[in-house]
Amino acid sequence: MDDREPNRRRFIKKGVALAGWVAAGGTGFAKGQTASSAASETPAKDLDAYGERSHYVTSARIFPPPWGPDPFGLTSHLFTPLQDSVGIITPASLHYTMAHKGFYVPDINPAQHRLMIHGMVDHPLIFTMDDLKRFPSVTRVHYLECNGNKARPDHKTVQRACGLTSCSAWTGVPLSLLLKEAGVHNGANWIVAEGVEDNKGSMTLPLAKAMDDMLVAYGQNGEPVRPQNGFPLRLLVPGFEGLCNVKWLRRIKVVDEFYGTYNEMDRYTSVDPKTVKPLPFLQGPKSVITFPSGSQKLPERGHYQVTGLAWSGGGAIRRVEVSADGGHSWKDADLQSSVHRMAHTRFGIDWVWSGEECVLMSRCTDELGQLQPTLTEFARFLHQTPIDLFTKAMVPNGHNNYILPWKIDPDGNVQNGLA
Amino acid sequence: MDDREPNRRRFIKKGVALAGWVAAGGTGFAKGQTASSAASETPAKDLDAYGERSHYVTSARIFPPPWGPDPFGLTSHLFTPLQDSVGIITPASLHYTMAHKGFYVPDINPAQHRLMIHGMVDHPLIFTMDDLKRFPSVTRVHYLECNGNKARPDHKTVQRACGLTSCSAWTGVPLSLLLKEAGVHNGANWIVAEGVEDNKGSMTLPLAKAMDDMLVAYGQNGEPVRPQNGFPLRLLVPGFEGLCNVKWLRRIKVVDEFYGTYNEMDRYTSVDPKTVKPLPFLQGPKSVITFPSGSQKLPERGHYQVTGLAWSGGGAIRRVEVSADGGHSWKDADLQSSVHRMAHTRFGIDWVWSGEECVLMSRCTDELGQLQPTLTEFARFLHQTPIDLFTKAMVPNGHNNYILPWKIDPDGNVQNGLA
Repeated sequence: MDDREPNRRRFIKKGVALAGWVAAGGTGFAKGQTASSAASETPAKDLDAYGERSHYVTSARIFPPPWGPDPFGLTSHLFTPLQDSVGIITPASLHYTMAHKGFYVPDINPAQHRLMIHGMVDHPLIFTMDDLKRFPSVTRVHYLECNGNKARPDHKTVQRACGLTSCSAWTGVPLSLLLKEAGVHNGANWIVAEGVEDNKGSMTLPLAKAMDDMLVAYGQNGEPVRPQNGFPLRLLVPGFEGLCNVKWLRRIKVVDEFYGTYNEMDRYTSVDPKTVKPLPFLQGPKSVITFPSGSQKLPERGHYQVTGLAWSGGGAIRRVEVSADGGHSWKDADLQSSVHRMAHTRFGIDWVWSGEECVLMSRCTDELGQLQPTLTEFARFLHQTPIDLFTKAMVPNGHNNYILPWKIDPDGNVQNGLA
Repeated sequence: MDDREPNRRRFIKKGVALAGWVAAGGTGFAKGQTASSAASETPAKDLDAYGERSHYVTSARIFPPPWGPDPFGLTSHLFTPLQDSVGIITPASLHYTMAHKGFYVPDINPAQHRLMIHGMVDHPLIFTMDDLKRFPSVTRVHYLECNGNKARPDHKTVQRACGLTSCSAWTGVPLSLLLKEAGVHNGANWIVAEGVEDNKGSMTLPLAKAMDDMLVAYGQNGEPVRPQNGFPLRLLVPGFEGLCNVKWLRRIKVVDEFYGTYNEMDRYTSVDPKTVKPLPFLQGPKSVITFPSGSQKLPERGHYQVTGLAWSGGGAIRRVEVSADGGHSWKDADLQSSVHRMAHTRFGIDWVWSGEECVLMSRCTDELGQLQPTLTEFARFLHQTPIDLFTKAMVPNGHNNYILPWKIDPDGNVQNGLA
């Protein structure tokens, strides 16, 4: 990191002597011109019931075509604008989505929705939404990430390169409570979760994980889960790939063996084709710098706050380091939000840009001690070349958690450092 | 609390033998009727950019007329629907608001907005929004509450009785950083914060608090602060009465004495009229049960989850107790969310309703050991009668944190227990 700071650090150079303003202060405030002269007052009208954001705020999800040679051609993704993110909560309106067969969202009446738990249980049960709310609830902050979240050299922005991850405060019932209510048989090892989708979105998941920390979630950031994220009910499987977090959840079957559903066998390579056993679900440690990031421009040399997000399927983020010299030296960043397990964690670090070309990178370490790999390390682990990684549609074990560098040009333009 | 639970606790009685469904399971899922037969698929259309909630979700703020004999007649309040709340985050669209002179919201262009810091400082400074984002940011979860949040016997719902409080994850710059940048003079003891409002919303606040934990916030729940909550910039003064958290912040003047602004002297009795010194700003410990709450109905005797929110200006919530017998006996509730200082904290407790009339109450204790008072204790402390409290427009020191009981009738109807 660049340490060329003056003795008394001043982030901004725009200190201004304001004699007129100050003199006018007296025992009250000065009349006349205000600091925000652009302000005008307009009535809020029908925003009384449910407010909206300012019309000056235009942050939006993007809907790029499937990347590379999509062998399936049937998925639709909306990417979260991470470059505009602050803190760790993704507004529900901007949460990433992945959907099958275009972008159809079931329009479910919650009064008629049911969750069934059956299979290897003493008491098959059907729950209404009201039933579920009679159980103890918990609220936990967790990220979700699609395994298709894969940065490539041709991605110009952090939204395009890394926008298939988001983070929410989820409220719901621990699945373990519902399973205990049903009474799980000895010999049961898996659950199969099914949602209201054409292909049912079925996934086979370890019973041990269900008894540990899976949530049957009806709340997202303080209101009902949004339709695009599974209204009225979705499964939360903290730290597992996004696909496991079944949306529009309607059925959980307790079983003794890995099922190999359509999603697992035909649609996604979540299964080792030789042994027909599931590949690891848990996602590794990953971080990304959201400012400065691709297609942004630094207006001048000087102080900036480099900031971004880090997360891991392995638990809490313990450390984030930032390099301003392409990975030769690293400096610890500050964690600037609450640190939750399997959740986005905001990091930041003061940085002085000298005006010369440089490469910014971040890497994180989780509570298991796992360190986020570089692209080279990641490719070596998979016995592939970086080129293979970028041109193949999907890596078998999915989670593309290699470091995404940002190159700062002398003119301040920020570009994808994988290029 | 009622402990008449069966040996093997079962929250819901609707366990159903589902022979047909289970038999059809086999190695895949059954075809045919689904658990949520009401689901249909409709395209999301223009919700790609910025999603919306389900049309089945109609939770809304209410805009009741000023309560009681309003001596000013110029404030407008929107009340948060706490009865629908889950977790601790209030969706920004449902955050309570208080505004002067009707309900006008400044329409501020953030590119032209400025924050000035001046008065007893070495370097008077003017910051653009971009300038502020070059400082280290923090994200903290904090509640806000209007001192007018006062439960009365005629309030039928928790929204009407207690809806002038909300909680968000706020992102911004610690004000201490900006003040250090400006260089505060010896002898300075106060700041005067001013917003873009007709009456400027000015408040005089202790410099020590500014150096401790005040935030200049531009982010709310992961996106820019909403217009109704101060877009593009507001002051956050954790634990202090809502009025102190100046919206549409444009100016901070560092001064040596308490100013006595319009808000403080003429409009609100935040000042002891004898000594012309400010009354305490810090709000006491408060909690409220959101389910079951006024105007709701329990459909049947049996298991329920009593849930609600607790918060305190004195720091973190350490304990919440619930009584089901009008305060004769108390039982510890579980804290079901992360516990943040000066933030809503979600509590819940299993409860079996016997079908008989009873009175539910909650009380909380904060990290200072402060216990939430009953109405009788609260009135005694102020040397007033409960009737005086309800009929007088405003209590001098404002924060009405007495316990709000809910009475359950034998038919399951829930009514205000202050009546």
